[in-house]
Amino acid sequence: MNAQATDSLRDALARLRAANVQLKAFAAVRDDDSALALAGTLRGPLAGQLVAVKDIFDTTDFPTAYGSAIYSGHQPSTEAAMVGIIRHAGGLVVGKATTTEFAFLQPSPTLNPAAPGCTPGGSSSGSAAAVAAGLVPLAIGSQTGGSIVRPASYCGVVGFKPSFGLLPTAGMKCFSWSLDTVGLFARSVDEVAAFAQAVSGGRVMAPTPRPAEGWTFGLPRAYPWGEPSASGAMAMARAREALQAVGARVVEVDLPDWAGESYLAHDAVQGWEAARALTREVETSLPRLSDILRDYLQEAGKVSDEAYASAQAVARRARAGCRDWLPGVDVLLTPSAPDEAPEGFATTGASTWNRAWTLLGAPTLNVPGATGVNGRPMGLQVIAPPGSDSRCLAAGALLERGLLAP
Amino acid sequence: MNAQATDSLRDALARLRAANVQLKAFAAVRDDDSALALAGTLRGPLAGQLVAVKDIFDTTDFPTAYGSAIYSGHQPSTEAAMVGIIRHAGGLVVGKATTTEFAFLQPSPTLNPAAPGCTPGGSSSGSAAAVAAGLVPLAIGSQTGGSIVRPASYCGVVGFKPSFGLLPTAGMKCFSWSLDTVGLFARSVDEVAAFAQAVSGGRVMAPTPRPAEGWTFGLPRAYPWGEPSASGAMAMARAREALQAVGARVVEVDLPDWAGESYLAHDAVQGWEAARALTREVETSLPRLSDILRDYLQEAGKVSDEAYASAQAVARRARAGCRDWLPGVDVLLTPSAPDEAPEGFATTGASTWNRAWTLLGAPTLNVPGATGVNGRPMGLQVIAPPGSDSRCLAAGALLERGLLAP
Repeated sequence: MNAQATDSLRDALARLRAANVQLKAFAAVRDDDSALALAGTLRGPLAGQLVAVKDIFDTTDFPTAYGSAIYSGHQPSTEAAMVGIIRHAGGLVVGKATTTEFAFLQPSPTLNPAAPGCTPGGSSSGSAAAVAAGLVPLAIGSQTGGSIVRPASYCGVVGFKPSFGLLPTAGMKCFSWSLDTVGLFARSVDEVAAFAQAVSGGRVMAPTPRPAEGWTFGLPRAYPWGEPSASGAMAMARAREALQAVGARVVEVDLPDWAGESYLAHDAVQGWEAARALTREVETSLPRLSDILRDYLQEAGKVSDEAYASAQAVARRARAGCRDWLPGVDVLLTPSAPDEAPEGFATTGASTWNRAWTLLGAPTLNVPGATGVNGRPMGLQVIAPPGSDSRCLAAGALLERGLLAP
Repeated sequence: MNAQATDSLRDALARLRAANVQLKAFAAVRDDDSALALAGTLRGPLAGQLVAVKDIFDTTDFPTAYGSAIYSGHQPSTEAAMVGIIRHAGGLVVGKATTTEFAFLQPSPTLNPAAPGCTPGGSSSGSAAAVAAGLVPLAIGSQTGGSIVRPASYCGVVGFKPSFGLLPTAGMKCFSWSLDTVGLFARSVDEVAAFAQAVSGGRVMAPTPRPAEGWTFGLPRAYPWGEPSASGAMAMARAREALQAVGARVVEVDLPDWAGESYLAHDAVQGWEAARALTREVETSLPRLSDILRDYLQEAGKVSDEAYASAQAVARRARAGCRDWLPGVDVLLTPSAPDEAPEGFATTGASTWNRAWTLLGAPTLNVPGATGVNGRPMGLQVIAPPGSDSRCLAAGALLERGLLAP
């Protein structure tokens, strides 16, 4: 590295550390010497870009606490596959971003740079907040319910949850193996798409400009999980105008049965699996779990094999049905979250608007640019058929262009 | 536990430890006190049955070395999801079964109880050998190429590699996240099926007796990866007779293009991913890798993004094609391995006959009962469409019945 690059990296780390005192988006930050030594060895499409890694992924050069008191100071001996991928692609992992406890609901201490006094959302709280504050251009997180798209919506950044299998969960603390999905954060759709291209080895391609006329966005007339809030409706109206202004086609659609069925099946799948994935923690460290997680696991332990197998059978049929998608519709568009970021820090919000798509393994993208009734960020969720990740990103780039137009 | 159950468990553990001195199927065995304390707490369908866990899965009550000198004595702080599942189902994990180095090709010191002087196969060497020697009724392992079906064939036991997603890889040392699959060992198809039912929460059901006349087995006329050996042909002829004797229909089939394409795509998928999954080990501990793994990773590191993305695109098309399966055929039948277990311990054999099905995520089952030209076990591989795990097991039970008939 030349002197200019060295100074620039030192400055970025100093700024990050200073901001983190208030923001609390990082559970650990790399020291300067280690960062400079590593930066000199990095080659690849990410070219030394700073990346934050959610503290749910095992790292050998940072402690990894999974947001839990049980694992405070825990130092893994092995490294999550995503960390190796990022290094091979030339990214510089600069720190561990905060997570809620085991990526469930108990909040981390992180603030929301885009909505003072409000939760950043969860569970990928630190990843969304660090990108929103401009401390890193890129971050990785994970979603089991809505833990990528929701915090991205609350913090006004782009969050991409790809299809199942695109990015590896190996080395990530498991909550529900059928649902856990690795996701990405950046400030723009183009940046998140380039990140996705780099870490997927080109299985996903960054969007090339394509005429807006070729696109049809489907806006559901109704949702099986309830009505949008006033902020959700406001953001959808803004998106509709923006899409029409850039020349995309917008149609109203009825969501097929597989959407509602997926939403309902999510609960039993997550519960049965979480009760098993966290067996050890429950057996040896029950008093060190938060109340909310302890209560949840107690209920989750009651999900019967029959209820689980039945929910998995529903999931399987829904995924098969989803392969047919909606005739004539490229992508679906919904609000990303129930509302703007809630005030205070007692909760991280709800995954109501994301669960079905997580269970289906459909790629979803939070596109920021709209606001809710209180002027806070209120994101739009672009949804594409499972396996059509590039389409999801291209459609998101178009929506972003429309929302950013003066 | 009553006195009789206590004595019986003590005896089983003593026998296991004594046999293991020669057999070397276990890297670690639970002590009596811990086993007795645990056994008293177990409830569920596995009802205190002894289970061996391949030393590629993280355990908090045994060291976990992944068959690698780098991790000798390594004690994980977290537990693989499969271990929690087994405990919830009432199984008693009695020890860690040996694995080849990181589940690749460098052999463990394990012997083959069914073929003296020959390799037990790999990478799930200890799991197959422990079941073959009758030291445990049940074991879990993993397959990335052929690491369940091949050692089961060599050791003359039943090995079941389910569809993708049925059983969680969370907490397993990753070699290739798109291919790594958890699998099960037992002495009979009924036992492996009951095990699968218990650990899948009933997503797979143990076979109920069904008339043999309802079944059509497809025997390929030719294979894209080469001709069967004399032992493979001998086992196939024996299976054909056995199936016809019990009244099942046997037809000759041409394998669709997706079979050969999957075989070819496996290589680049595994290479690109292994180079990234083992980033840390290569960077910090290269001299402590075996020659065969070091050489492999050096080549694997050269697999380009383009080659990887292209192989993944082939895999995706092949999986979609495989959904149509073969008209009128319930399951396919092939040899489980290139040959009987090779003499000596320098290699664990090759995954040639298993790779395509691993990449497709199709359930496969080794059914023992036939022998090769030297009188050693030579297994048959039953293959069903992805997601049809119960069908695979039911067909295997039928074949087993035919092979066991006097």
